[in-house]
Amino acid sequence: MIYPKIPLAQTVIQLCKAKGVKHIVISPGSRNAPLTIGFSNDDYFKCYSIVDERCAAFFALGIAQQLQEPTAVVCTSGSALLNYYPAVAEAFYSDIPLIVLSADRPKHLIGIGDGQTINQKNVFENHVLCSSNLKLDLKEDNIDLIEEELPVFENLENKVKTLPELKKTVQEYNEEEIDKAINMALLKNGPVHINVPFDEPLYTMVNESSVKPKSIDLENQPLEIDDYILGDCIKDWNAASKKIVLVGVNQPNQIEQHWLDNLAADDSVIVFTETTSNLHHDTFFPSIDKLIAPLKSEDFGKLQPDILLTFGGLIVSKKVKAFLRAYRPQQHWHIDLKKANDTFFCLNNFVKTTPNYFFSKFLPQIKSIKSDYNSYWSHIKASRRVKHNNYLNSIDFSDLKAFDVILNSIPGDTILQLGNSSTVRYAQLFDLNKTLEVFCNRGTSGIDGCTATAIGSAVANKKQTTLITGDLSFIYDSNALWNNYIPDNFRIIVINNQGGGIFRILPGHKNTENFDTYFETNHHLTAEHLCNMYGLKYESVSDEAALKTSLNSFYSEGNQPKLLEVFTPKNLNDEVLLNYFKYIG
Amino acid sequence: MIYPKIPLAQTVIQLCKAKGVKHIVISPGSRNAPLTIGFSNDDYFKCYSIVDERCAAFFALGIAQQLQEPTAVVCTSGSALLNYYPAVAEAFYSDIPLIVLSADRPKHLIGIGDGQTINQKNVFENHVLCSSNLKLDLKEDNIDLIEEELPVFENLENKVKTLPELKKTVQEYNEEEIDKAINMALLKNGPVHINVPFDEPLYTMVNESSVKPKSIDLENQPLEIDDYILGDCIKDWNAASKKIVLVGVNQPNQIEQHWLDNLAADDSVIVFTETTSNLHHDTFFPSIDKLIAPLKSEDFGKLQPDILLTFGGLIVSKKVKAFLRAYRPQQHWHIDLKKANDTFFCLNNFVKTTPNYFFSKFLPQIKSIKSDYNSYWSHIKASRRVKHNNYLNSIDFSDLKAFDVILNSIPGDTILQLGNSSTVRYAQLFDLNKTLEVFCNRGTSGIDGCTATAIGSAVANKKQTTLITGDLSFIYDSNALWNNYIPDNFRIIVINNQGGGIFRILPGHKNTENFDTYFETNHHLTAEHLCNMYGLKYESVSDEAALKTSLNSFYSEGNQPKLLEVFTPKNLNDEVLLNYFKYIG
Repeated sequence: MIYPKIPLAQTVIQLCKAKGVKHIVISPGSRNAPLTIGFSNDDYFKCYSIVDERCAAFFALGIAQQLQEPTAVVCTSGSALLNYYPAVAEAFYSDIPLIVLSADRPKHLIGIGDGQTINQKNVFENHVLCSSNLKLDLKEDNIDLIEEELPVFENLENKVKTLPELKKTVQEYNEEEIDKAINMALLKNGPVHINVPFDEPLYTMVNESSVKPKSIDLENQPLEIDDYILGDCIKDWNAASKKIVLVGVNQPNQIEQHWLDNLAADDSVIVFTETTSNLHHDTFFPSIDKLIAPLKSEDFGKLQPDILLTFGGLIVSKKVKAFLRAYRPQQHWHIDLKKANDTFFCLNNFVKTTPNYFFSKFLPQIKSIKSDYNSYWSHIKASRRVKHNNYLNSIDFSDLKAFDVILNSIPGDTILQLGNSSTVRYAQLFDLNKTLEVFCNRGTSGIDGCTATAIGSAVANKKQTTLITGDLSFIYDSNALWNNYIPDNFRIIVINNQGGGIFRILPGHKNTENFDTYFETNHHLTAEHLCNMYGLKYESVSDEAALKTSLNSFYSEGNQPKLLEVFTPKNLNDEVLLNYFKYIG
Repeated sequence: MIYPKIPLAQTVIQLCKAKGVKHIVISPGSRNAPLTIGFSNDDYFKCYSIVDERCAAFFALGIAQQLQEPTAVVCTSGSALLNYYPAVAEAFYSDIPLIVLSADRPKHLIGIGDGQTINQKNVFENHVLCSSNLKLDLKEDNIDLIEEELPVFENLENKVKTLPELKKTVQEYNEEEIDKAINMALLKNGPVHINVPFDEPLYTMVNESSVKPKSIDLENQPLEIDDYILGDCIKDWNAASKKIVLVGVNQPNQIEQHWLDNLAADDSVIVFTETTSNLHHDTFFPSIDKLIAPLKSEDFGKLQPDILLTFGGLIVSKKVKAFLRAYRPQQHWHIDLKKANDTFFCLNNFVKTTPNYFFSKFLPQIKSIKSDYNSYWSHIKASRRVKHNNYLNSIDFSDLKAFDVILNSIPGDTILQLGNSSTVRYAQLFDLNKTLEVFCNRGTSGIDGCTATAIGSAVANKKQTTLITGDLSFIYDSNALWNNYIPDNFRIIVINNQGGGIFRILPGHKNTENFDTYFETNHHLTAEHLCNMYGLKYESVSDEAALKTSLNSFYSEGNQPKLLEVFTPKNLNDEVLLNYFKYIG
């Protein structure tokens, strides 16, 4: 087998292997050549080549999101690394394990005006679980300088410095740092940054590995809840007649169904789910906004829970956040292994465990409370659904109508990726097919990597993946299409309302030149040229009948990925949506 | 006039105006609405709307590069800000004043799981001159919470908190922070980050400003050099018979010509300039690599200077860096107002002033030394030029040939923007038209923003601007074309060698699948679809005759910007270049 000659590169690669980091997304460069050579010559790894580092990192994020295992990105020194930052932040807030491996110059070449060199140390400090700064030499501050760039300069050749003992020590130091970082990503599910300095020559290869790094296994801590916490929870829960369970972003099939059935059977409990919760039960309340948006002050008092129990990631619905912040429950419990987000400013009980473990201890001990809480709101939910359908049948073609048609068309048992942020907000208004697995980058809610994430996801999960996204998000992330890995069954639907339609819904000053330019950012671009450039089959529609016809064959097999662009009337969309909220009340 | 109602937004805007920050590049968002409203409604400012923040920041960088005055970028909260980072780092290492204005949520909404919220404080710490974190309330850690998101929640309305005295204090605090940051950008020429929290409502406008922030003017420190330093310099210089002046990136027309003439007349001085030095004299040595590349060990000893005097920004030529690190001068003096880069590990005299001021004190006092140093190397330079021309006349169409034809075609008195990094390296081999003003992002040498920088530059400088760039750089930064500001006289030449041609020149393992995929990243894409998408006139050529024909009319006026794509044979390019260095020796 071929290895890079540099022992530090071998060490990084072997430790990735030992810890099961299999998918490696590489961006081209020279400084990272030792890692590229090593990863790409070892069949254990599945390597991908993606030039734009911003897309490369979101692509890796999509893989890690699906596989729920650490995925690595590898780049050269300099600003290349900084292009990873949007995806690193998304991984940080979405609890996705992303291993950033950045090649760097040796320390003596940093900060002295050498090319393609920045201050890479701790550069993601605000948004990583751990920054490991590997070293070439533990005494590198006093290092003698070697210049191997031009081998003709023989007069420097005898200036080799580090003692064998010292080398052993730096090897140990680096092994521990790499070990710590990857373990952190595994244990805490989040991004870590490992900065790896390499001295030239960078391209030399050898046939045998010269290091045997030690991988220290993770110690899995047993799950537990203190008895007195559990006891208090049970006592308070059993005494409360109004309880809301609110679930944020949640991986599909993560919560055992019998616990959900258990919650669903309780009259005193309302379970609010979001499109990204991936939890379903007929008695649950998806489409939170549909329920809440039309409520008046007096209604909020009725809905205000005694206890709020939350789990999962970030909440999409602004309306439920505003409601629960204004009408705070007496108690807010949050179940999570890591984060104690006080989203509603009234968190009084952070239970540091998994939802399943908590439910296994908690639910068998609670009793069902007689309450008309669930039935009262179920009644309203049912009425909203009727009105929702009536309204949808009455409106002209628009964003809302298009979402209705599209969401009904997606084949069951597939992956649905949603763009930010109009897309995910529209999707929240509909009751989706329960066999869909739904994802959206809600960690930072950026439009910067929706497409690349979806493509990474489609590469990692063999099920068909459909991305629904807006025109601005799609063009923003157009470089996501610049790779050789888009599966033929990947589908993109672009809702093109000729700008940032979401700004028309916000309380701005619409229909002024200023608004058009700086808020909505009007444009007349389409996705067609990008499809032609990157080999996607392109179709476009601008009315309901054509949309339905197109969707009939859109998901069927073909020999290239497809994109369907749906043009909607920008001056109508906001009106249709605002009237919707009035109508369903 | 229309102002945003929020006093902090008014304060930021008024201080920008007071300090002459005129050009404002805005990316759409809601949290930054107060700034967008304020800037775009004041005719003092020239505002631009650019959706992709990565491109927006490079576009602003291009404006600041041309005008040599601070330019602002304005974005919403969340990952939007992180997309500025590549341009921020470029600005940091290229000494370009870039004012980053990021809108943020109020502190009580950060880190609690709210949407589109990251930890923005000090996020560019490694690469800004200053991070100013503005505040809504000096006691904001203890702030009472207001929720204005849904006005129906009247029960919160009476929870207004800050006392008038306190408000005055936080206003003063913010004014000082803004003042300090912009002054720093002005004084030290570099990026600063001002993080501006806004509470809702964000869109309210008023007709009168409610603040009168105080702008504290910069105190310009007089330039001076200690007499004993100057005395030592003069003494040592006059005693040395071999002196090299090496100039890095340097703004056009910055150094007074009579000082250059003065240096040029000295037999003991060799002035090495780079394409990006924007300095010209018949006796100077441009194309450093052309001189150095073929040298043997014994030649380097002859070239090794006693004194090396440097000024300007980063050096492109790897070969001159390697030479001077191996054959170190006895003394290295660097003239700069800010940075003391010890690029060659032998800096012994950092003269903290401008080159003009230094020359004005220094050159009148030195005497010309009899030396054959300049004449010996001028002779070699002349011989290299002859061989250069012979070689160029003998080769097939290739990157090198294309650069020869293209660089000869560019009209005088225009701006030439060069991409990284093959492009700038090829350009270094040619003697360019002296009336060209040449720029390249050499701060981080990234490929991530070459096009956006060139377009920003073309917007700020009325002279015709031509960008020469590679296929990977061009596609990487394709979103640079996504704006309404590209002047009709803007020209792009893409040298398309179907991948990262530079990797073929490096000591890799070419012509393996592994090399093609992960290093060269082969592709068959062209710029044509992007031109059609964004309204650029497109032409392509793949031989010398067609290239010459195209260039005949390429620069002539038209009603849209133009792009010329030059296809070169990737399997020939490296050979032609490597043989070039052998041939000219």
